[in-house]
Amino acid sequence: MNIHYLTLFPEMYEGVLNTSILKRAKEKGIVDYNLINFRDYSESKHNKVDDYPYGGGAGMVLKPEPVFNAMDALDLANPRVILMCPQGQPFDQKMAESLSGEDDIVFICGHYEGYDERIRTLVTDEVSIGDYVLTGGELASMTMTDAVVRLIPGVLSREESHQEDSFSTGMLEHPHYTRPREYRGMEVPDVLLNGNHKLIEEWRHEQSLLRTRERRPDLLDD
Amino acid sequence: MNIHYLTLFPEMYEGVLNTSILKRAKEKGIVDYNLINFRDYSESKHNKVDDYPYGGGAGMVLKPEPVFNAMDALDLANPRVILMCPQGQPFDQKMAESLSGEDDIVFICGHYEGYDERIRTLVTDEVSIGDYVLTGGELASMTMTDAVVRLIPGVLSREESHQEDSFSTGMLEHPHYTRPREYRGMEVPDVLLNGNHKLIEEWRHEQSLLRTRERRPDLLDD
Repeated sequence: MNIHYLTLFPEMYEGVLNTSILKRAKEKGIVDYNLINFRDYSESKHNKVDDYPYGGGAGMVLKPEPVFNAMDALDLANPRVILMCPQGQPFDQKMAESLSGEDDIVFICGHYEGYDERIRTLVTDEVSIGDYVLTGGELASMTMTDAVVRLIPGVLSREESHQEDSFSTGMLEHPHYTRPREYRGMEVPDVLLNGNHKLIEEWRHEQSLLRTRERRPDLLDD
Repeated sequence: MNIHYLTLFPEMYEGVLNTSILKRAKEKGIVDYNLINFRDYSESKHNKVDDYPYGGGAGMVLKPEPVFNAMDALDLANPRVILMCPQGQPFDQKMAESLSGEDDIVFICGHYEGYDERIRTLVTDEVSIGDYVLTGGELASMTMTDAVVRLIPGVLSREESHQEDSFSTGMLEHPHYTRPREYRGMEVPDVLLNGNHKLIEEWRHEQSLLRTRERRPDLLDD
């Protein structure tokens, strides 16, 4: 898979793409990351990428030319083109699974300004990672990258991939305990120590259900 | 505000905390970022931070000692302590606003494993940034940092802060257009060019309502 980022801040990605799972996926040749500063595709003298809005109002608007030109230069056959924006479809695990089968994903990341509406004609998906306002699309695109890349076969080891639990079972995870058995006066529940696997499974299922009912009843409705 | 990150991957944060708004907030002396590798607080010989789960099962569990010891070393008077986990309360703009008034925020970030349940006794909030599985809490904590820091008075200029619109009005934003007036056959709507501010306001409100109804009817219910 090739993941392309159209951004004005490619340096923001360095630490994240070069650590842990995302780094390993690249080293294994499963994914490649392509950081594109679309300021390089501006048609104006001073590499301007934004301008005042037609109709007036505060704030600047991202011009169409740099983004269209950068997409022309990429010249991809059949990419998923994702516009990071608060108006988009909420990102979820199902979308992560769907994206994990793509050959090319392009993230278009604005930075504290609106997109000229015509940029939307380039995109296949408008996506928001949550109901909060971010300064730009960069962190959202990195977050999506992590959620997607870890689902590509071969990226996670079997040991790591069990952690999918929380959303794939539709319930929140049960509590975990490890050594020491007693820490600062807090003890591990007896049921986990008695070696009765049937009882342990029952306890975990019950805890999982309880926690889901208490914290995220919406998950049980689905 | 001081923001403390308990993480096994402090290097992941470099690019993000040193760019744009987050960098500027630090340079202005409004925020300081404190990256703590809690592996340094392990009590074991090989700086082990995880161990097998009591009761069996796949995956490892984050041990309590390194996190408790790191919190002891921080010794904060009245911090908000946020555990990044899929079981947490969904992060939203209201929580971002509430956090923007704090003096100390601590993010506890696990990395592809469960937390020993006793770690939860240290936290004030368990938070998830969305219904998708991430490899660790790092990107989630950076995303929350961006959403929170930009709300602290003095961080954004007036020009920048207008972009709050999307969630503060309870509706999605109207379309934006900037120069050129015609681009690749696509024209700016006439209403934005005629200088009639009343008509422009009406058009924008209508478009905002249409877009919200079409894409996020749930926002109108609230």
